[in-house]
Amino acid sequence: MKKEGLVIVISGPSGAGKGTICKELVKRKEDLTISVSATTRDPRKNEVEGKNYYFYSEKEFEEKINQNDFLEYAKVYGNYYGTPKSKVIEETENGKDLILEIDIQGALQIKESYSKGIFIFIMPPSMKELRNRITSRGTDSREVILKRMECAYHELNYAFKYDYVIINDDLEDAVKVVDSILIAEKHKAIRKKDIIEKLKEE
Amino acid sequence: MKKEGLVIVISGPSGAGKGTICKELVKRKEDLTISVSATTRDPRKNEVEGKNYYFYSEKEFEEKINQNDFLEYAKVYGNYYGTPKSKVIEETENGKDLILEIDIQGALQIKESYSKGIFIFIMPPSMKELRNRITSRGTDSREVILKRMECAYHELNYAFKYDYVIINDDLEDAVKVVDSILIAEKHKAIRKKDIIEKLKEE
Repeated sequence: MKKEGLVIVISGPSGAGKGTICKELVKRKEDLTISVSATTRDPRKNEVEGKNYYFYSEKEFEEKINQNDFLEYAKVYGNYYGTPKSKVIEETENGKDLILEIDIQGALQIKESYSKGIFIFIMPPSMKELRNRITSRGTDSREVILKRMECAYHELNYAFKYDYVIINDDLEDAVKVVDSILIAEKHKAIRKKDIIEKLKEE
Repeated sequence: MKKEGLVIVISGPSGAGKGTICKELVKRKEDLTISVSATTRDPRKNEVEGKNYYFYSEKEFEEKINQNDFLEYAKVYGNYYGTPKSKVIEETENGKDLILEIDIQGALQIKESYSKGIFIFIMPPSMKELRNRITSRGTDSREVILKRMECAYHELNYAFKYDYVIINDDLEDAVKVVDSILIAEKHKAIRKKDIIEKLKEE
């Protein structure tokens, strides 16, 4: 019997650095895979089905919503995006650990539908640093930056709904902490039931 | 304000290797200290008050039992041994992480009196290996070995009362796992309340 993989949900305000942390982790950890989302938007050039996204028609997507097959989903600018539950279960049953990078609304939806996930909130070291990071992207207007900051401030209230909170002050440290969380979680007593029973059979 | 230290309780059957793991950890981690027990037995040559043990008279010890000042205690061959609650609180309030190596009865007592401890159960990789370890000490009679094995077998039932279970197959791996548990536990959302509130004040 294969050991069931973990689902790690990495979330936090825009600019906290969750994407960079996920990319670094997947590079380093063989058994860790980034979860592939489903979407109804058209594939872009070079995008591969099942690698970048699962591409569903709107009808398919809505059917799967009705079948309760999404850990979370949202409609953004007319297109659906979501995390297919069946795919997540398939992967974890094969022993793979999955990492999901997702905004706070999505993470809270997953917490409702898949409570055995591990929920990690990534925080900026300071609001000033967060503003620097958002500003330095150079893509947003003053108004958008202000809105993002307000949103981030509001989102800090949700940190306590998560299992873990990591201040992303230094990428290397933050990655090490997520790695430690993975190791620790794999040793939770509730996940060792089989092994203890096996030992007792000797 | 100093961050409150953690109390890590390392427990498991005799022969599982909990002592070796504790010694290795303390060697490597600066902020980690082995908790000092109190006892009513006479100090041996070279034993230092507050380092090897706190040496109490029987009267003192029993007074402290009545004052509810032990996380756990037991009487063994006519002498008391116990973990003084006030000392543990003093150390952790100063930001030190404390590690306690203790048998299963003691660990379960601590769980009742200090639920915020982190409880780690160390298991042998197999019952055969446990027997090898106990036998190779060369100090126990066949009868004592048999009794220890029976006891260990029974004690496996308590593993689920712990937060974490580590199979001690390889010392280096086991130490790494405890270290990861420490890092993960320090990032639990419930322990980050101050930092999140501080960020919101900016």
